[in-house]
Amino acid sequence: MKQWNEKCAVVGTYNVDNAALKSYYALFAMQHRGQEASGISSSDGKKIYTHKGNGLVTKVFNEKNLKKLLGKISIGHNRYSTAGKESLDDAQPLFARYNLGEISIVHNGNLTNADFIRSQLIEAGAIFQSYLDTENLIHLIAQNKKEKLLDRIIDSIKVIDGAYALIFLSRRKMFAIRDPYGLRPLCLGKITNEDGSIGYITASESCAFDLVGAEYIREVNPGEMLIFEGIGEKIVTLTSLQVLPPRPYPCVFEFIYFARPDSKVFGKNVYEVRKNLGKELAKEYKIPADMVIPVPDSGVAAAIGFAKESGIDFELGIIRNHYVGRTFIEPTQSARELKVRLKLNPIAELIKDKEIIVIDDSIVRGTTSKQIIKILKIAGAKKVHLLISSPQTISPCYYGVDTPNSNELICATHSLEEVRKFIEADTLGFLSLEGLKRSIGTTHHNFCQACFDKNYVDDYTKGKK
Amino acid sequence: MKQWNEKCAVVGTYNVDNAALKSYYALFAMQHRGQEASGISSSDGKKIYTHKGNGLVTKVFNEKNLKKLLGKISIGHNRYSTAGKESLDDAQPLFARYNLGEISIVHNGNLTNADFIRSQLIEAGAIFQSYLDTENLIHLIAQNKKEKLLDRIIDSIKVIDGAYALIFLSRRKMFAIRDPYGLRPLCLGKITNEDGSIGYITASESCAFDLVGAEYIREVNPGEMLIFEGIGEKIVTLTSLQVLPPRPYPCVFEFIYFARPDSKVFGKNVYEVRKNLGKELAKEYKIPADMVIPVPDSGVAAAIGFAKESGIDFELGIIRNHYVGRTFIEPTQSARELKVRLKLNPIAELIKDKEIIVIDDSIVRGTTSKQIIKILKIAGAKKVHLLISSPQTISPCYYGVDTPNSNELICATHSLEEVRKFIEADTLGFLSLEGLKRSIGTTHHNFCQACFDKNYVDDYTKGKK
Amino acid sequence: MKQWNEKCAVVGTYNVDNAALKSYYALFAMQHRGQEASGISSSDGKKIYTHKGNGLVTKVFNEKNLKKLLGKISIGHNRYSTAGKESLDDAQPLFARYNLGEISIVHNGNLTNADFIRSQLIEAGAIFQSYLDTENLIHLIAQNKKEKLLDRIIDSIKVIDGAYALIFLSRRKMFAIRDPYGLRPLCLGKITNEDGSIGYITASESCAFDLVGAEYIREVNPGEMLIFEGIGEKIVTLTSLQVLPPRPYPCVFEFIYFARPDSKVFGKNVYEVRKNLGKELAKEYKIPADMVIPVPDSGVAAAIGFAKESGIDFELGIIRNHYVGRTFIEPTQSARELKVRLKLNPIAELIKDKEIIVIDDSIVRGTTSKQIIKILKIAGAKKVHLLISSPQTISPCYYGVDTPNSNELICATHSLEEVRKFIEADTLGFLSLEGLKRSIGTTHHNFCQACFDKNYVDDYTKGKK
Amino acid sequence: MKQWNEKCAVVGTYNVDNAALKSYYALFAMQHRGQEASGISSSDGKKIYTHKGNGLVTKVFNEKNLKKLLGKISIGHNRYSTAGKESLDDAQPLFARYNLGEISIVHNGNLTNADFIRSQLIEAGAIFQSYLDTENLIHLIAQNKKEKLLDRIIDSIKVIDGAYALIFLSRRKMFAIRDPYGLRPLCLGKITNEDGSIGYITASESCAFDLVGAEYIREVNPGEMLIFEGIGEKIVTLTSLQVLPPRPYPCVFEFIYFARPDSKVFGKNVYEVRKNLGKELAKEYKIPADMVIPVPDSGVAAAIGFAKESGIDFELGIIRNHYVGRTFIEPTQSARELKVRLKLNPIAELIKDKEIIVIDDSIVRGTTSKQIIKILKIAGAKKVHLLISSPQTISPCYYGVDTPNSNELICATHSLEEVRKFIEADTLGFLSLEGLKRSIGTTHHNFCQACFDKNYVDDYTKGKK
Repeated sequence: MKQWNEKCAVVGTYNVDNAALKSYYALFAMQHRGQEASGISSSDGKKIYTHKGNGLVTKVFNEKNLKKLLGKISIGHNRYSTAGKESLDDAQPLFARYNLGEISIVHNGNLTNADFIRSQLIEAGAIFQSYLDTENLIHLIAQNKKEKLLDRIIDSIKVIDGAYALIFLSRRKMFAIRDPYGLRPLCLGKITNEDGSIGYITASESCAFDLVGAEYIREVNPGEMLIFEGIGEKIVTLTSLQVLPPRPYPCVFEFIYFARPDSKVFGKNVYEVRKNLGKELAKEYKIPADMVIPVPDSGVAAAIGFAKESGIDFELGIIRNHYVGRTFIEPTQSARELKVRLKLNPIAELIKDKEIIVIDDSIVRGTTSKQIIKILKIAGAKKVHLLISSPQTISPCYYGVDTPNSNELICATHSLEEVRKFIEADTLGFLSLEGLKRSIGTTHHNFCQACFDKNYVDDYTKGKK
Repeated sequence: MKQWNEKCAVVGTYNVDNAALKSYYALFAMQHRGQEASGISSSDGKKIYTHKGNGLVTKVFNEKNLKKLLGKISIGHNRYSTAGKESLDDAQPLFARYNLGEISIVHNGNLTNADFIRSQLIEAGAIFQSYLDTENLIHLIAQNKKEKLLDRIIDSIKVIDGAYALIFLSRRKMFAIRDPYGLRPLCLGKITNEDGSIGYITASESCAFDLVGAEYIREVNPGEMLIFEGIGEKIVTLTSLQVLPPRPYPCVFEFIYFARPDSKVFGKNVYEVRKNLGKELAKEYKIPADMVIPVPDSGVAAAIGFAKESGIDFELGIIRNHYVGRTFIEPTQSARELKVRLKLNPIAELIKDKEIIVIDDSIVRGTTSKQIIKILKIAGAKKVHLLISSPQTISPCYYGVDTPNSNELICATHSLEEVRKFIEADTLGFLSLEGLKRSIGTTHHNFCQACFDKNYVDDYTKGKK
Repeated sequence: MKQWNEKCAVVGTYNVDNAALKSYYALFAMQHRGQEASGISSSDGKKIYTHKGNGLVTKVFNEKNLKKLLGKISIGHNRYSTAGKESLDDAQPLFARYNLGEISIVHNGNLTNADFIRSQLIEAGAIFQSYLDTENLIHLIAQNKKEKLLDRIIDSIKVIDGAYALIFLSRRKMFAIRDPYGLRPLCLGKITNEDGSIGYITASESCAFDLVGAEYIREVNPGEMLIFEGIGEKIVTLTSLQVLPPRPYPCVFEFIYFARPDSKVFGKNVYEVRKNLGKELAKEYKIPADMVIPVPDSGVAAAIGFAKESGIDFELGIIRNHYVGRTFIEPTQSARELKVRLKLNPIAELIKDKEIIVIDDSIVRGTTSKQIIKILKIAGAKKVHLLISSPQTISPCYYGVDTPNSNELICATHSLEEVRKFIEADTLGFLSLEGLKRSIGTTHHNFCQACFDKNYVDDYTKGKK
Repeated sequence: MKQWNEKCAVVGTYNVDNAALKSYYALFAMQHRGQEASGISSSDGKKIYTHKGNGLVTKVFNEKNLKKLLGKISIGHNRYSTAGKESLDDAQPLFARYNLGEISIVHNGNLTNADFIRSQLIEAGAIFQSYLDTENLIHLIAQNKKEKLLDRIIDSIKVIDGAYALIFLSRRKMFAIRDPYGLRPLCLGKITNEDGSIGYITASESCAFDLVGAEYIREVNPGEMLIFEGIGEKIVTLTSLQVLPPRPYPCVFEFIYFARPDSKVFGKNVYEVRKNLGKELAKEYKIPADMVIPVPDSGVAAAIGFAKESGIDFELGIIRNHYVGRTFIEPTQSARELKVRLKLNPIAELIKDKEIIVIDDSIVRGTTSKQIIKILKIAGAKKVHLLISSPQTISPCYYGVDTPNSNELICATHSLEEVRKFIEADTLGFLSLEGLKRSIGTTHHNFCQACFDKNYVDDYTKGKK
């Protein structure tokens, strides 16, 4: 039984004024990472308060319920939307009372040995009230006999495999940990309170820092744990522990699609990397055309880079409608291209009789690309060349991304030419793996790009490679 | 930390068509026992389905969510409303996955040693996600090493003290248990399905049976466990196990106030008992008056009995408004008697210049009685004699009833004459303990009447008495 | 096209503190007269404020929207629920800006020549935005050329036929009018404000007065208009104008079913009249039986009267469930008697092997009576004698009551014996017209009882009789 | 008393399958023109059906209520959001029954002599139930004595002044009219039904056509009325009547800000015009800079044009958060720039130590511009040159745009240098009136640009100029 902790957002704030409100703003800034559910736990040093619910951050929280989240420490979570499953039991933070008191956890990622650990825990007499792999961690901590929570967390972390950016909240402390591969992002910032005292924030993306006036310090390192202590005392102590030896393979898809362009993840600005993807793409595909247009919003930065490198005019030739929501009355089968048109509409006057290059970030099933090309052709485009700012997606992700199985990935089952024909593009091109590497530039480590090359990070650690 | 499982309703159905719908109707019939939250778990033999929420049965359930509760077995629960606390985490049924599979529990009553057991469980590494004492049972069962659920339930029951009517649902079986004192009611009925097959229902009150066309069989005995097995097989097996030796002291207050008059509890019809309470009251208080009127709806049956015994005319002299709900805009302090008038309004033309006997079931703080007498006097009553169809409430309940502390019980802290003066009645009388006994009639055992005489049932078992 | 203003409630308050809140309480007390929609208009002397919505009074209003209804004058309305039609456009009060300023109207009753007047108004260029016959009045007033609103209202009243209790609110005055037959009730009360100043209230039923601490003065007379003036001045002027010559025929059904037992309508207490109906019924039907039980709540008072006159024991043998609401999941066809059982459940232990007299207020289609008798027989009743505290309903109402057509009234199309057989009663009896008259007692006028005898009041005025 | 029909959207469909659904999609495409309320009327030839409500199109409509809007004709409306006023009475379409049957109206624009006409109508006995100037038209039509609706509409149109795009729906016909200045846009399209029959659509913007698969035909001309007849007959008749002599002065602000870039209004594509605004701006302001960035989304097209003309790099340096909604918990006073940051966040890594040109469409009060510049400076920008793709807004609009009074328009009350200092820009520049003209290109007429030059169109007609 596979359970995903898909693309999510986590945040933690320590020793900051209105801690829960700060987490609220941070979650709002990271809303793009998860729209299904949202939740915040806070602590005033004596008790942990939790509120969570289904829906957008702005729906789940209001002034009344935020005010009940007392204290200067808080953690928060946005949950990614997966079709057909809306269970409040699976919203985070996950809170419990146990033998050391109270604990609350948020998690972005996916634990690859969760089923095995769960079955062991159940064998030992644990009961499970959610489908979250995160619930394992609470049980591991509760059943551990050591006296200090820190030791128990470290023991528990050593048992789990997979991808995680985790934040633990006890009544007086906070712990932030990233898996040894550093698959999911987590960064650290500093907040200066109104009275001049110093607090900290840790979040999946740095765009969360801007909204709460925090200063970016650095990434949490792969395998590193940050321990925040001393609430109520004169000085907050921030300790770094290298819990697990780092084997850095951060997820390259954060650059390609997930993260907001104004965020810094893995130490690099996303917008700049995306522009580079477009520039590299332009070096690899020299196609004469009247203009280059992005599929909004995901293709915009790459298209700007492509235009600059190629000298072809950049145009915002497709307009996106941002009002589409869950309650939309969908059209019937008979007008299938309407579905994409609800979100995207081309500017016919601009496109008519023109040869255009369209930039998108990736192709999954190919159906959306096919519809986009169709509406461009209906609008009068003479030729449509679709260029993708990443390599062909041929293998699923096991580290927290909700990709379909291989047999649903069109590039895994079809040749480039077959895909081109299916989507009815005049040209179809993907960025090479080398181009991808060049776009990111110099780093001291590699990235996980298993979705493109099938080299899964734990194959390395498990000796499979 | 005391946590109440206040006056609630439970139901279980086994091998019946539309099991969840049947539980829905049963919960609806028992809505008077709990309005805060409601929930149902069902099983189709493979999986347990649960839906619960805050509010009335008709608010929590709709056709869509009921249809998802598949199968021919189900359990349900109504939760009593307590001021200021509306946590969905504390709604029932309580569901968990554990080492024997899946389990769901509903509980009416209060476990008196819950805090002690909880601290032991937590010490042993259990985590708690609710404030319900019922959560103890799931952990006791999960941590037990025996192979069969039945044995684990029996072991667990032997550990807990207090009052309980419990129903356990596994994927294929159902277990119903009543505490050895039989403090809370639980009765058994039979349902004939459309195809002629036989199913069972067990519920707090027999009024639930009428609505689903079930036939009353008998009470579940104190200390008895009923085991329902054989779903999908030709014949359902219903086994009785005397798990704990019976020491019957059922709660006399079910007769006085809690149960619906059309229910049979502890083997007796509630309406008949209440009429007897009124008759005995009439024998004890021979007051000349123009009429006897009940405080609706709780005093009606006793007032009918009083009128018959005394020969004084019965009149429905106070009209009750049934539209009062949670959202009512309350009047300000300055018009305090308005609060009771929102619910109750006297018929002035009937009462004017008359001497009246008013029958109510009990007095807690005395404030409501005071206001009722006030509006009757304003309406022109010459004299108001308030007679209560139970003895003076002088001590709190520890077995599942949400009574205030002794110092808030006016009869615990004031003499009869002081209370009479406070409520401004011309006469104030309570039924004697002997009158109460006579009203119920011959039984082979006593009732728990600790709220009237401070003789708590576990004092007997613990050798305190 | 017939449009009903069915059984509704109206209220008006003049020169009282928190006028809108007072109307809110009054509408709450009269909730039984209409649950579909509710609304209040108020005035602070400068501007009229209105809020209305679908649902119960407690749903439509909250502290926030009530606070916006400023001023010391207000009118309010409860609308009766009719199947399948929930249009906010047809909620009252009806507000408009016109050439004398602003006006708001509430209406209980039915205008019998509404279609004719509407077609004339439309011919003259009026536009209609609701289906309410009340909208006619606003147009009649707006198109009138006289200078004073009072004169325009009088002219308009003279044009309309039918049943009405109307209250008009201008920015500084209030006008209450009852039709010349006095078909629908309207009474007048006095309120003493906290500063000792005097205000007034007028409402359909006097039960509304009790809740706001008002003193009953008298009925508004048939054909009388009350004019309330002088807001903000030292003394409020209350003027009486006999606008139309009185021909009193008030609706006898208010006594039989509509009004609350604690109300005074047409100068008499409803509970007392209903008891008399039961007493007269006992004189007309001398049937030996073990007990007399009411169909709750409507038959209670008559059953008490019947028991007293006959000497047969009164018992509350059927228990009513007050939690039934709109959102209930209805049972399927196969269990038809469940529908009545959701509301009413007999006490089997009381009824078993007994001969019982059941008292109800009226029979419309006969299906409910049939089901009630069925559940009593299932509960074990030996014989069921159904006695109705009113004559046979044989003709529809045109004056504001939502009765079905004659062909749906079982007593209009079937003999007494046929009806008895259909409902499967052992005896079926109705109160005689003479018995009905005796129950009400001496009055200086007759009552409209066209539903029983087909003598419609405007047949008299139109010379048809 | 001024009442605005602010920037809104209208649509009408005639003889098309699922007419109401088509209007729904069209309103969805034009959601940017109004988010306060939405509504649709449809007709099946016999009856007009209406549904309207507050909120976004997707909130107001669901499958259930859309299905009740029967027929092949429909009109729809989106209402613009204005602070603090959410009255359902003022939602459109406005429906009424009158002496020719039934009528429903939608209106985009503002009638400048509405108060005068309303007072005349009220004088004549009309009643008003909304604050909409559109209600005038229904009264004018209802009071007109001519036999045909067409004649009455023409008479009514001749009485009103101001800006309007109006669509009237009777039970069998539809009428679309644009004011003689053509201030508000309205265009005509053709829809081919599945059976091959031809239907029509008319809407404020052509982007609505794309979503329903309609073909753009042309603009409705200033002063022209289109009459759609013949529903149910073989051929639909589309007649054009020049009701009023055209004096074309369409609103230039539709190009600058209102319309969607993928729409054609006044015969020209909005995106192309906006790019030209940017190009002209680049010709007028030759400032050396590292990059040009738009304020998203309104400044994007102009910034693309500016970049192309100037040769300076285009960058999407500010990221917009699209999740901001009404329910957002706003920050307190102390962090004022947070308000703009909720929507807009700069990419610090891109901007740091750079000299940037920022393109926005207009400046109203100057506070937003000030905050944008502030967050860019905080992000490290060396110099910020703000260039506006329109002239200085110095005078309010009376033709349907919700601009503040002159004294709140910063450019009306302050010199260019004062404004520059206030917003703390290093350079501040506006497009010249000549540049604006050149951007739009050759037309046979002028545009209304009263907000820039105070030359109001009816001053011409009234001889003031």
